[in-house]
Amino acid sequence: MEKKIKVLVWNEFRHEKQNEKIKKIYPDGMHAVISKHLNSQGDIKASLACLDEPEHGLTEKVLEQTDVLIWWGHGAHHEVKDEIVARVHRRVLEGMGIVCLHSAHFSKIFKVLMGTSCVLNWRDGGKERIWTIEPSHPIAEGIPEYFELPETEMYGERFDIPTPEKVIFISWYPGGEVFRSGCVWERGHGRIFYFSPGHETFPIYYDKNILKIITNGVRWAAPRIIKKQECKNVPPIEK
Amino acid sequence: MEKKIKVLVWNEFRHEKQNEKIKKIYPDGMHAVISKHLNSQGDIKASLACLDEPEHGLTEKVLEQTDVLIWWGHGAHHEVKDEIVARVHRRVLEGMGIVCLHSAHFSKIFKVLMGTSCVLNWRDGGKERIWTIEPSHPIAEGIPEYFELPETEMYGERFDIPTPEKVIFISWYPGGEVFRSGCVWERGHGRIFYFSPGHETFPIYYDKNILKIITNGVRWAAPRIIKKQECKNVPPIEK
Amino acid sequence: MEKKIKVLVWNEFRHEKQNEKIKKIYPDGMHAVISKHLNSQGDIKASLACLDEPEHGLTEKVLEQTDVLIWWGHGAHHEVKDEIVARVHRRVLEGMGIVCLHSAHFSKIFKVLMGTSCVLNWRDGGKERIWTIEPSHPIAEGIPEYFELPETEMYGERFDIPTPEKVIFISWYPGGEVFRSGCVWERGHGRIFYFSPGHETFPIYYDKNILKIITNGVRWAAPRIIKKQECKNVPPIEK
Amino acid sequence: MEKKIKVLVWNEFRHEKQNEKIKKIYPDGMHAVISKHLNSQGDIKASLACLDEPEHGLTEKVLEQTDVLIWWGHGAHHEVKDEIVARVHRRVLEGMGIVCLHSAHFSKIFKVLMGTSCVLNWRDGGKERIWTIEPSHPIAEGIPEYFELPETEMYGERFDIPTPEKVIFISWYPGGEVFRSGCVWERGHGRIFYFSPGHETFPIYYDKNILKIITNGVRWAAPRIIKKQECKNVPPIEK
Repeated sequence: MEKKIKVLVWNEFRHEKQNEKIKKIYPDGMHAVISKHLNSQGDIKASLACLDEPEHGLTEKVLEQTDVLIWWGHGAHHEVKDEIVARVHRRVLEGMGIVCLHSAHFSKIFKVLMGTSCVLNWRDGGKERIWTIEPSHPIAEGIPEYFELPETEMYGERFDIPTPEKVIFISWYPGGEVFRSGCVWERGHGRIFYFSPGHETFPIYYDKNILKIITNGVRWAAPRIIKKQECKNVPPIEK
Repeated sequence: MEKKIKVLVWNEFRHEKQNEKIKKIYPDGMHAVISKHLNSQGDIKASLACLDEPEHGLTEKVLEQTDVLIWWGHGAHHEVKDEIVARVHRRVLEGMGIVCLHSAHFSKIFKVLMGTSCVLNWRDGGKERIWTIEPSHPIAEGIPEYFELPETEMYGERFDIPTPEKVIFISWYPGGEVFRSGCVWERGHGRIFYFSPGHETFPIYYDKNILKIITNGVRWAAPRIIKKQECKNVPPIEK
Repeated sequence: MEKKIKVLVWNEFRHEKQNEKIKKIYPDGMHAVISKHLNSQGDIKASLACLDEPEHGLTEKVLEQTDVLIWWGHGAHHEVKDEIVARVHRRVLEGMGIVCLHSAHFSKIFKVLMGTSCVLNWRDGGKERIWTIEPSHPIAEGIPEYFELPETEMYGERFDIPTPEKVIFISWYPGGEVFRSGCVWERGHGRIFYFSPGHETFPIYYDKNILKIITNGVRWAAPRIIKKQECKNVPPIEK
Repeated sequence: MEKKIKVLVWNEFRHEKQNEKIKKIYPDGMHAVISKHLNSQGDIKASLACLDEPEHGLTEKVLEQTDVLIWWGHGAHHEVKDEIVARVHRRVLEGMGIVCLHSAHFSKIFKVLMGTSCVLNWRDGGKERIWTIEPSHPIAEGIPEYFELPETEMYGERFDIPTPEKVIFISWYPGGEVFRSGCVWERGHGRIFYFSPGHETFPIYYDKNILKIITNGVRWAAPRIIKKQECKNVPPIEK
């Protein structure tokens, strides 16, 4: 029997409690919708965590049992404790995968992994068309040449990120903008997937292409190895 | 008249005061030797700064007048204040170049820019042969196919860094190791050059190839633009 | 006195002779317009060559005296002789820069340098908005956050190219497409810049942003070194 | 039941017939040894092809049924017909993986995929130590921090290749050289792995680490999609 990929879907989980419109779309939180889909796949075992749990639900023990962390945050990035960010960071460098969604472009953990400001241009509302630039990348598996979201938050260039190892998706907006909406990097032994769609006021995490991409992202980001990063004083091999 | 490149050579500057052997090699500090060479070039104006100055010599005003920062640190990385690191980081993202030398692989600023652990294997002493992998890169200008340092500190793989945009130099050691000893990245609008040779107990910063490479690195890392990184809420362009 | 960059602007130069509309826009050919602009810069000396000259105007001697080659071809890619392509290719690997414009995405020389099919989606007519993704890249110097061309040929993704070392521009079209319209690579010691705007039926090579980008591209692609590529049987350095 | 990866191990297969020493090491050819190991894995079905078969054993039909092609060539690169190279090339761009071994650095197919001269420095004989630079890459799965080959052909830098997407292995030689010995790229929808060890006069393809790396390479290079590359004239999506 193949081992399942253990995913932890982390959500700030404030908007869904504080805003009636959002609560209607996601009564149990965006993370619950994503997690439910992942658990229906057979090869993934997803759990939930959120900001207001002790240690934000990200204890050492929980991270040790996590293969891929999904991160959604927005208004409370600054409430995430630095020592927890450092812990998650260390775990990514050891091999845990991470999928950062939408406004997580401004989360502490994403900025720490990128080393850049991660600024972008933005605007509420309107359509988004997502082009598949690398159809052979595992994250694009089963995704058409392009697909559309009827309502989205526009995220536009320039996006201040390190040159991605692959740009898998580029988005088009009727307002005239473009965006590198799906990008991947590796840091340490861990893989990072940033995917921009997912504004909390629209039912984006019910879209079948979006769910497929997140699922693909999880499979792609699953650890190849888990290994501590150590500085070693070594004797010569050759005498 | 062409404007000179303004370089700030930053040094921890402790070893040279505390260790007699090192003091003999670098009586005024390693930064003074590097700075002197840069100032002899005609197109560069270099100044000095060190850890024990107020704000580590890295005030807002000083950074605003710096095109390229050279960084050497070793035993006191932890004494560099986080707010100063954040200030330097922001300035790199705005366009200032940075050249990180030798044990600066473990400096806060380099780790923050890389987003990785920057660990490596190491050992004191022995020869190093530096191979030029990208002879057409501006940083390799005038450097032979390979050159040697009679005494060095071995830095060996695996070096935990993001995949470099270019690996310019790879080092060979008689003990049996290899190392990506000269690598470049861009973060925000700034350019980063890491160059590994430069242990404090050997007169490496008097070597003409080493000085040439650092000079080339400074020219390459000089800002193309200086521009703040801002997240902007923008109206649609198309109606 | 600084040496000028020697540029050869190569044009298929058939459309301008065969089509009245195009002849009106470019009576002496697109290459003449580009060349005139480059020659007005002071630091560049541009000459012309075209398909119907002996050896397509690309003799060994001419190439030896060329720092950067600009290439525009369209309907007659197949008429370019393979041995001339091999000669240009070799010269790029030795260090000559090359700027491939618009339909040169399907030229033999571009395909040989890329190793891919270079296919894309296309359609005549409509507006194009070009976003500057890497404002600090030398090729983007002086170019605004975005600019527009009122009439263009749409080139859309997926563009089958190797992952670019930098994507400098991404284009937006009202028809709903996106395109990585300005990309760079290095091959051997030579630098390659592909820039997609430039359909022959519109006066695109009179646009000041387009001319600025091509000029920047020439300066960026100018050789750092010129060096033959040789396979060498070498004795050991260490005994 | 999972589908097996269909591998075609292509060998020039001349040395093994013409040289007594080599015939002793590889009586049925190097490809037979590699193929036998792959077939022992359970998830791979490997077959053989060689230069002297009709169409070099690389008919359209054979290629259509190949997931990953392994290539070993040396003295007779020039005898491989250009139209067969073009056929293999097209197939890689459509998604077939390719693993190029040792002197295949100078094969037509590898050079066509790279777009560079692929020159390097070389010398017969001596030890090689192979360092694992990216231990978390699937191709490094199960491979130690470093391993050694007692007798090898030295391949040294500078190796004229496009900047690899990942350098997985770097080799060290007692003669004083270094080499990027395991590198990967993508072209079109296909994946390319170049791995330098494998001189015909030494029993390198019996080494367990080498066999493990080739097996890993095959699994990594197996197609994600198979899709023709087409230039399409498309109508606007938005009206």
